Amino acid sequence: MPTIKYYVREGLLPAGQLTSPNQASYDEAHVRRLRLVRALLDVGGLSVAGVRAVIEAVEDVDAPLHKVLGAAADRVVPRYEGAGDEAGDGLAAARETVAELVERRGWTADPASPAAEALAAALAALDSVGHGSFAEVLDDYADAAEQVARTDLDYVSRNVVREELVESVVVGTVLGDALFAALRRLAHVEASRRLYGTDD
Amino acid sequence: MPTIKYYVREGLLPAGQLTSPNQASYDEAHVRRLRLVRALLDVGGLSVAGVRAVIEAVEDVDAPLHKVLGAAADRVVPRYEGAGDEAGDGLAAARETVAELVERRGWTADPASPAAEALAAALAALDSVGHGSFAEVLDDYADAAEQVARTDLDYVSRNVVREELVESVVVGTVLGDALFAALRRLAHVEASRRLYGTDD
Repeated sequence: MPTIKYYVREGLLPAGQLTSPNQASYDEAHVRRLRLVRALLDVGGLSVAGVRAVIEAVEDVDAPLHKVLGAAADRVVPRYEGAGDEAGDGLAAARETVAELVERRGWTADPASPAAEALAAALAALDSVGHGSFAEVLDDYADAAEQVARTDLDYVSRNVVREELVESVVVGTVLGDALFAALRRLAHVEASRRLYGTDD
Repeated sequence: MPTIKYYVREGLLPAGQLTSPNQASYDEAHVRRLRLVRALLDVGGLSVAGVRAVIEAVEDVDAPLHKVLGAAADRVVPRYEGAGDEAGDGLAAARETVAELVERRGWTADPASPAAEALAAALAALDSVGHGSFAEVLDDYADAAEQVARTDLDYVSRNVVREELVESVVVGTVLGDALFAALRRLAHVEASRRLYGTDD
C-alpha cells in the first residue's frame, strides 16, 4: 500500500510539521485529507492524477459557488480516451442525441462540457457494439439520474457546512457512482431472477 | 493506441486466419469483438484484466441463464482494493446496513456477492470521510437503481436474441455505468444551478 510519503510526493497530501529530522506530526486536517485520498483511490477507483484533480477542485474557492461545483464535477468525469477514428460518425450522431435530450428536458448543460461529451461517448460506444437503440430508453435513465441528483443536492444542503460543500460534492460524485453502480447490480440480480428463473 | 496484435496477445481477441506469413484475415465476429474490446477499454474504463474477465463471462455458456448473468455482472463490479486496516469497524457496520437494505427491499442478493461487498465498501468510504449519514438516503438511490435495472432488463428482453444476451448484459452493465454517471453529472449541474445561482 502506498505510504503517506508517497501521497505527499504526489501532491495529494500536504507535508506534516517536522518535529525531528525523521518525524513529522499530522493534525486533524491531515487525517481527514488522508481518508479522502484513500476513499477516492480505493473505492472511487480514481487514478493518482484523478485524485490530484479532485484536490485542486476542493482547494479552488475563488469562483462563484455553483461554478466551482460545476468545475469540480467536470474534473471527476470518468476518463474517456477517445473513440478511435472509426467512431467519428457515431460520435457526431450521439452528440446530436445528447443535444436533443438536454433541450427536451430543459437542462442548461453546455454541450461541450465533459459530462455531455462522456454521455455522447457512452452512446456512441453502445451504438458501435450494436446497441444503438439503447438511446430510446435514455429518458428512463435521465429520470433516475434526476432523482439521484435531487437526493444528492438535498443531502448536501441539509448536512454540509459551507466550507465543506465542494469537498462533499466531489466525494459524493465519485463515491456516489460506486454506490449507484453496486445498487444497480444488486437490482439486476433481482430483476433477472424474477424474469429468467429460480435457483434450481 | 494498442494494436490488434496486442489484443490477441492479451487474450482479448482470437487470432485471425493466416493468409500469408505476414497477413491475417478477420471475419465479422472478429470485428464485432474488436468493437466490444475497444468500447469496454475506452468508454467503460475497464483494465485489460477486466476486459478479459468480461470476455470469459460472455464465452461461458454452460450454466443456467440467470446464473450466467449473475456471474457476468459479478465480474464487472468496479475494482475495489481493500479499505485499509483502519476501516475494519466501518466496513462491518456498512455490511450490516447493506444486509438490512437487502432484507427491507425483499431482494435475494447474496451478502457475500461482489456487488454487495462493493456497496458496503462505498458506504464505509463515505463514512470514513464524514458522510456516514448518507446511509439515510440509501433507499432513494435504491429506488432509482431498481428503475434503471427494470429499464435495462426490459431493453434486453425486447431487443436481444438468446446468444447475445450475456454479451449485452455485460456491455450494458459497464457502458450503462458510464451512461448513468454522465447523466447524473448533467442533472447535478441543473439542480445546482437552480439551488445556488445563475450565470451572473
